[in-house]
Amino acid sequence: MTDRLSQQFTFLQEADRLKTVLRASRLADGSRRENSAEHSWHVALYAMVLADQAPAGVALDRVIRMLILHDIVEIDTGDVPLHAGDGTAHDAASHAEAKAAERLFGLLPADQADAFRALWSEFEANETPDARFAKALDRVPPVMLNIANGGGSWTEYDVTLEQFDQRVGRKITGAAPGIWSWIRPRVLQFFTARA
Amino acid sequence: MTDRLSQQFTFLQEADRLKTVLRASRLADGSRRENSAEHSWHVALYAMVLADQAPAGVALDRVIRMLILHDIVEIDTGDVPLHAGDGTAHDAASHAEAKAAERLFGLLPADQADAFRALWSEFEANETPDARFAKALDRVPPVMLNIANGGGSWTEYDVTLEQFDQRVGRKITGAAPGIWSWIRPRVLQFFTARA
Repeated sequence: MTDRLSQQFTFLQEADRLKTVLRASRLADGSRRENSAEHSWHVALYAMVLADQAPAGVALDRVIRMLILHDIVEIDTGDVPLHAGDGTAHDAASHAEAKAAERLFGLLPADQADAFRALWSEFEANETPDARFAKALDRVPPVMLNIANGGGSWTEYDVTLEQFDQRVGRKITGAAPGIWSWIRPRVLQFFTARA
Repeated sequence: MTDRLSQQFTFLQEADRLKTVLRASRLADGSRRENSAEHSWHVALYAMVLADQAPAGVALDRVIRMLILHDIVEIDTGDVPLHAGDGTAHDAASHAEAKAAERLFGLLPADQADAFRALWSEFEANETPDARFAKALDRVPPVMLNIANGGGSWTEYDVTLEQFDQRVGRKITGAAPGIWSWIRPRVLQFFTARA
């Protein structure tokens, strides 16, 4: 049991580094860029608050666990901004992320390494209802932050409304249509006012 | 439903401010003080990893939800360091925290405001098995960070081993004895080496 705890604490100490991984988004008050650890907390809170937007059959506690784990690989890879490289950089990063998942979850006892990696892989594959809802939620906080701070990563990457619909909307519309219906007019208003 | 979502997003935007609340602990690498949002993520991850240390009857998913919510009141009150004011400042803060819970959870639709406030109050009261395990977990990451960065908040507040046992140990021993058995010798070693 002592060895097991030592492995678990090694992983938990390594996980601390996620607090130093910076994302493209800035905080709502615009004061600084957001890190991936505080983002992970925020999106887990989104899941708790927006629970009644989950399609029937979604297990919300699995979604919350997925979201707690979803960015840990960035300790090795860094965050790949959604809008970087004309929106293609994000998809290209998947090999490096799989390697990072091997190393990082591999710090844990074998049973947990397998379980955590499986949950992370399920999220990445975006096929099950739980993963699809989790992925949809993951797209929403940066939208709210960009609106609050006056443009944020949309300004930095010169994102058009069409690109927003393609890169962000396509992940939200199907899995969380109620959220999309609420947020899309607000995004339109923001882009229109800015034009 | 639109009004409901508007209330929920108002709460989620306000919650962003937890990222600007600084704690006494520094990151493991010592580079800066930790904020309460990234701490909340880290301790939720602790709950997932250290699940098998939970006493029988603990509902781990409730513990995770408690930990996601547990520091939100600090948006209004700030973090009260455990070791400040000779270890008494923390207990004295509870009235202000209850007022903060009213205001912040009160931004949500009434049913969620009640449910979230109840979960937060349960955590604060530290009486149910779920709350006691959550409180025990909440005490552990700062210990690991202080050891990693060479003293952290123990140095800042000139904490003795006896004070550590009283303020930190008493919350961990009963609710998570296995964690305490693993961590206490490492703390002793740290304090001994420093003396």
